[in-house]
Amino acid sequence: MIFNCAVKTENITVVLNRPKYAGNIGSVARCAKNMGIERLFVVDYSNPDMEAIKKMATHFAADVVENMKYFNRLDEALSDFHYVVGTTSRLGSVRGPVVHPREMAEQIADITQNNKVAILFGPEDAGLTNDELKYCHLLVTIPTSDDLKSINLSHAVMILCYEIFTACTPSPERFTPKLATSAELEGTYDHLKEVFVKIGFINLEKPDYWMTNVRRFLSRTKLFSKEVQIIRGICRSVERSIENKRT
Amino acid sequence: MIFNCAVKTENITVVLNRPKYAGNIGSVARCAKNMGIERLFVVDYSNPDMEAIKKMATHFAADVVENMKYFNRLDEALSDFHYVVGTTSRLGSVRGPVVHPREMAEQIADITQNNKVAILFGPEDAGLTNDELKYCHLLVTIPTSDDLKSINLSHAVMILCYEIFTACTPSPERFTPKLATSAELEGTYDHLKEVFVKIGFINLEKPDYWMTNVRRFLSRTKLFSKEVQIIRGICRSVERSIENKRT
Repeated sequence: MIFNCAVKTENITVVLNRPKYAGNIGSVARCAKNMGIERLFVVDYSNPDMEAIKKMATHFAADVVENMKYFNRLDEALSDFHYVVGTTSRLGSVRGPVVHPREMAEQIADITQNNKVAILFGPEDAGLTNDELKYCHLLVTIPTSDDLKSINLSHAVMILCYEIFTACTPSPERFTPKLATSAELEGTYDHLKEVFVKIGFINLEKPDYWMTNVRRFLSRTKLFSKEVQIIRGICRSVERSIENKRT
Repeated sequence: MIFNCAVKTENITVVLNRPKYAGNIGSVARCAKNMGIERLFVVDYSNPDMEAIKKMATHFAADVVENMKYFNRLDEALSDFHYVVGTTSRLGSVRGPVVHPREMAEQIADITQNNKVAILFGPEDAGLTNDELKYCHLLVTIPTSDDLKSINLSHAVMILCYEIFTACTPSPERFTPKLATSAELEGTYDHLKEVFVKIGFINLEKPDYWMTNVRRFLSRTKLFSKEVQIIRGICRSVERSIENKRT
């Protein structure tokens, strides 16, 4: 899987409209920073409980909280943005088409190169009103189970920020050690077969039946070079062990 | 983009190993249920603060909390699972290859059709130890910004559950036979260890070093139930073979 695009996370701001719980604001700061987004606006939250915000942000995201900006009105908060993504859990023809978070991330990747993008979230209980959604260029809905559609605010923020971050990062710092070559594998299978004959594991009437089964799961494994050495070491130990008993 | 969700979420269980904060357990219950996963196991958490758990779960996920199961030991909790996904934020050659959450979801989609899958999370501060990760068939790491790698437990759970929920079925014709349970695998590892001692393969000064290496490639393999029978058959043949030489 190739993740090849370059969202400019410094051009993205999470905007919380009328949040109700200070703890959620702190959690949002941490989640956003986890995913490389460090700008946070809060609208219509007049009496912030900074203790609660800082506690949930943890000291890791203290800088995001310190740089957070407050606005009285949504239109003020959004005035400098070029593109606004609105989140909604309610669907309907009134609201027009909505996209999956993954499609949102793909769509904004380009836009963030030269434009400031806001990701807008409504209050915990009721979400954004139709009147607030009118500022949005794109609506996104997080898919959920029918059994529980109500997602905590900070978890909703995390999912969108994660999708944005994933859209811009190459698949992780993956580390795959050197795989065994075909020659190393065949040498190992031959050695195993010899040992299986010596210990009487292989039924001489159907010698390939068992080898086929063993090869099947070993080949599925994508064995590393050092691992086939371990298997051959086990084979040698079995052989020595039998030889010793003989003498 | 079409999301044709065919992961069997009823076969998935979130397993929290040694969680420290009751509130996180409640949040996890809600997140998992948002994404259709309603089974939650908690390991080594002797004094649950049910008030705090229920508060964060909200009444929406009260049923998940009520049906939650407690275990004293990780091996007990995992014994009935066929496939264990471990989460880790630390990378390195010691831990072997890790995948992106998206790749994890793609990989387990098929497996969940016929097998019980555990998604295992470590404690908030330290994560899973190497000794705990040995139970895992697949390791997954959530990509983060270098500026803040520490993700809150419930948000990590949300990301993985969201990816699972979003995952598409690769192809309907694919069939995965019954995988070995964790108990079958542990029995096999014990048997292998006994044999390794008998044949002198295991260096008694570092008994776990070799077992860790052997476990690593066997657990990567997604062994089927009939395949662990083959391995145990090989073990018995080695044992008989040594016994015969003795008499």
